[in-house]
Amino acid sequence: MDIYQESLKLHEEKKGKIAVQSKVALHNKKDLSLAYTPGVAQPCLEIHKNPELVYKYTIKQNSVAVVSDGSAVLGLGNIGAKASIPVMEGKAVLFKEFGDIDAFPICLETQDSEEIIKIVKNIAPVFGGINLEDISAPRCFYIEEQLQEIGIPVFHDDQHGTAIVALAGLINACKVTGKRMEDLTVVMSGAGAAGTAIAKLLLNKEIKCDVCMPVKDIVLVDTKGAVYEGRSDLNEEKKALAKITNFKKEKGSLAEVMKGKDVFIGVSKGGIVTQDMVKSMNNGAIIFAMANPIPEIMPDEAKKAGAAVICTGRSDFPNQVNNVLGFPGIFRGALDARAKRITTDMKIAAAKALAAHVKKPTTDMVIPDALDKTAAKAVALAVKKAAMCSGASF
Amino acid sequence: MDIYQESLKLHEEKKGKIAVQSKVALHNKKDLSLAYTPGVAQPCLEIHKNPELVYKYTIKQNSVAVVSDGSAVLGLGNIGAKASIPVMEGKAVLFKEFGDIDAFPICLETQDSEEIIKIVKNIAPVFGGINLEDISAPRCFYIEEQLQEIGIPVFHDDQHGTAIVALAGLINACKVTGKRMEDLTVVMSGAGAAGTAIAKLLLNKEIKCDVCMPVKDIVLVDTKGAVYEGRSDLNEEKKALAKITNFKKEKGSLAEVMKGKDVFIGVSKGGIVTQDMVKSMNNGAIIFAMANPIPEIMPDEAKKAGAAVICTGRSDFPNQVNNVLGFPGIFRGALDARAKRITTDMKIAAAKALAAHVKKPTTDMVIPDALDKTAAKAVALAVKKAAMCSGASF
Repeated sequence: MDIYQESLKLHEEKKGKIAVQSKVALHNKKDLSLAYTPGVAQPCLEIHKNPELVYKYTIKQNSVAVVSDGSAVLGLGNIGAKASIPVMEGKAVLFKEFGDIDAFPICLETQDSEEIIKIVKNIAPVFGGINLEDISAPRCFYIEEQLQEIGIPVFHDDQHGTAIVALAGLINACKVTGKRMEDLTVVMSGAGAAGTAIAKLLLNKEIKCDVCMPVKDIVLVDTKGAVYEGRSDLNEEKKALAKITNFKKEKGSLAEVMKGKDVFIGVSKGGIVTQDMVKSMNNGAIIFAMANPIPEIMPDEAKKAGAAVICTGRSDFPNQVNNVLGFPGIFRGALDARAKRITTDMKIAAAKALAAHVKKPTTDMVIPDALDKTAAKAVALAVKKAAMCSGASF
Repeated sequence: MDIYQESLKLHEEKKGKIAVQSKVALHNKKDLSLAYTPGVAQPCLEIHKNPELVYKYTIKQNSVAVVSDGSAVLGLGNIGAKASIPVMEGKAVLFKEFGDIDAFPICLETQDSEEIIKIVKNIAPVFGGINLEDISAPRCFYIEEQLQEIGIPVFHDDQHGTAIVALAGLINACKVTGKRMEDLTVVMSGAGAAGTAIAKLLLNKEIKCDVCMPVKDIVLVDTKGAVYEGRSDLNEEKKALAKITNFKKEKGSLAEVMKGKDVFIGVSKGGIVTQDMVKSMNNGAIIFAMANPIPEIMPDEAKKAGAAVICTGRSDFPNQVNNVLGFPGIFRGALDARAKRITTDMKIAAAKALAAHVKKPTTDMVIPDALDKTAAKAVALAVKKAAMCSGASF
């Protein structure tokens, strides 16, 4: 039985991967009158008087909604709300196991951005945070942006989760190769949710600190070649990216712009990078080949071609860029700080904490193991601190 | 420390009365690949091909959303979404403890009926049922009605839960007093969510069976006296009720119309019924004094005045009309039958099962004890059967 059939069997047997658990005993009338009527009126009244007390008396202090409209599920595409549930339940499992967070899947029948925004605002009272998941680009950018001021952290994991873990990997890859982040020449293939977030995070001027500095420039490449300001066929999202990338206005195919670069970041399509393309890069090339399930180039090929560090999205190779290293700790820290949003400071703190969690980075270990649950704790602490210092929390 | 302060302490200590539990272990990479990527793609694809499989592979088979807009919470009134959360969490606890159902609170910021309808439709994919809770009348009638065709059971507990448990009590009260349901003369005080549902259920012609028959008439009384067709000051809801009640067009105050009646049903205000009013009723009077926390008449007073059976909403007197005897078993049965809605047949089956669960009804035991968890099992079985026989299930 392969992994897919085995997973199907697991899903059938478990009858749902999560359950709702009662934390109060109901043995007698007194139990009932404390957990429910009439006693429950008291916390209700206290919250009515002072809404902030909702954090003291309810699940809001530890709950996250995993919200998806099923429009971009894994690599499966627009499979809709119902078919997305197994993924969102899985995410809730990861939230619990790695972050001790009570997450619940909210899978929406609508794919209308305005509707989604309204729904998230309206269901927010019971949740301490909103994890947007598997919502297609460019809608995901708009939806997340419109929800930034609702008073609880809203975080589109497909964008920032990947970006944060990749930044952690890049920090350590620089240590391993002796390169400095501010000197890196970077080419990136793919400008979807993850690609956009990675570009924005790497270029973010707020990064400046002892262990990492912002990358100065990134050349973005799509199926038509390098993206530069003024290229006639760019959509709105790429036009916006063209303004903050490729300052030298490099042109040409992926193979052409990869020549002489230090870093390749792939969030695009399997198999598009050849050994020759890697050979044309600078010495000590750093490869993030994150297309799933087939990377832009397989790690062994990249290594043969001289790459110094190779990260992929796969669990069967070293240096897996796995979001589970990010979101549980990030939300844990945000909830602990009672942050109102996830700031850039908090994202960068998460990346740095994750990088620092690898005590001695090596070629095969620039990112912690995905199953290392202590990583989430380190991330949570750093994010909490950043939230409290950056004014994102109460 | 009184019950209110003790409840407050419990809520603070528990940090939320429910938790989300993971049902899968995540010890190694294989666990991760089965519960999450890449294995999870398989149940997603199966559900995408055949949406009915969502019941086989996800939590939908056992999940209920407890949806409230906080507009009519307990007796506290319109305290809003956040302040309603302790009640909705409590409800989720009861769902788990009595029905083994995974319920999650959805507390909505909006009180716009159309918005609420849209949101419930859109969040429905992950839920096997929707329990509407503490939504003010008359909005609750409209909202519930508009949601009847969404393919999963939608049930406003404040209406039907109370009605079902009251009907069970009435069936047994008839046994105790030797009265026959079809001969009962009934007066009811209060025409909110519960009152309307009780009237409609007792008068429902589908009740006909060996243990109970529909009541022939009910005289509804509001603050201005008996409600009759043609009374000039009726709102839309009471106009509709006037069409199906008080066929003799009785007029006058509550005291006046109570004379010579068999049954008083109160879902209105504490203390409005006097001993003299009870004395004016027929022999073997049956009193449902369900105002909370102060009943329309206290049980000892009603007894002194000659009432044969007295039911209240209070746990410190016999015959408590407690919804917990209804909703967990009703949803359990509906989920087990995979019912698409809660039909009248299912409601009546629940009431009859609840009545039959009291093996030997007496004056002080016409309704099972609220903490008798076997009652929910009996209700669930009867509801499941009714769902399967009435065509409400798949």
